[in-house]
Amino acid sequence: MPKTPVPQELAEFLAQPNPSAIGTIDPDGAPHTAATWYLWDDGRVLVNMADTRKRLDHMRQDPRVSLTIMGNDSWYYQVTLRGRVAEIADDDDFSGIDRLSTHYMGNPYSARHQKRVNAWIEIESWYGWSGGAPWAGEKS
Amino acid sequence: MPKTPVPQELAEFLAQPNPSAIGTIDPDGAPHTAATWYLWDDGRVLVNMADTRKRLDHMRQDPRVSLTIMGNDSWYYQVTLRGRVAEIADDDDFSGIDRLSTHYMGNPYSARHQKRVNAWIEIESWYGWSGGAPWAGEKS
Repeated sequence: MPKTPVPQELAEFLAQPNPSAIGTIDPDGAPHTAATWYLWDDGRVLVNMADTRKRLDHMRQDPRVSLTIMGNDSWYYQVTLRGRVAEIADDDDFSGIDRLSTHYMGNPYSARHQKRVNAWIEIESWYGWSGGAPWAGEKS
Repeated sequence: MPKTPVPQELAEFLAQPNPSAIGTIDPDGAPHTAATWYLWDDGRVLVNMADTRKRLDHMRQDPRVSLTIMGNDSWYYQVTLRGRVAEIADDDDFSGIDRLSTHYMGNPYSARHQKRVNAWIEIESWYGWSGGAPWAGEKS
């Protein structure tokens, strides 16, 4: 499997506000997936959740995650990043969710009553498809 | 958690050719995700893979899967289906992948040299978001 840092072309793709889904492991060892915003943050991936989200409990219990990112215009461009949550921190000032909301929606996050939490993911491997052909040599 | 059969509004959403990602468990118990076509098949979900795909090995080892489906026009509409692979069968005549390809692309699948495999997923629970509010009461 290729290791990060990812190729420039891939980094440019990841820098876009793409749809994505994150996979975690629940306490029974079963897969759990959820749609998520993500931000490619100079080699790490930032995600952010309301503190009531199950996937936050999952990450605290088992830091391994998998993130599948699809092209905004065409999901024939898609990348999966696998890695570990390296840092979890309360987003008390909403700076994390505001970065994500501005990236995706163009404005800060409106639901200021929630408690939000940041999680930074360190990428251990990735594979992708670009226009129907593997972006990397890895089987998906 | 609500049980299937799903509400009519949700079934209509699932019947669209939406982007989706499927989560499985790898042999180390880590989450694995990949973009996938799916077909809502009268209460079960059909997915189809080249027989070289890692997620097929995962499903054979642990049938538990999680599928996050995002709205084609807006991923503010999103549903996650969790369940088990109840049946895996070689798609020797390409009837499975052709159904999926026709659903998403409007024509049969072009890569006739591959070996393809069908997997049918039985849904055990689901949760969703519709326009920023929970579709069901379940936390995601």
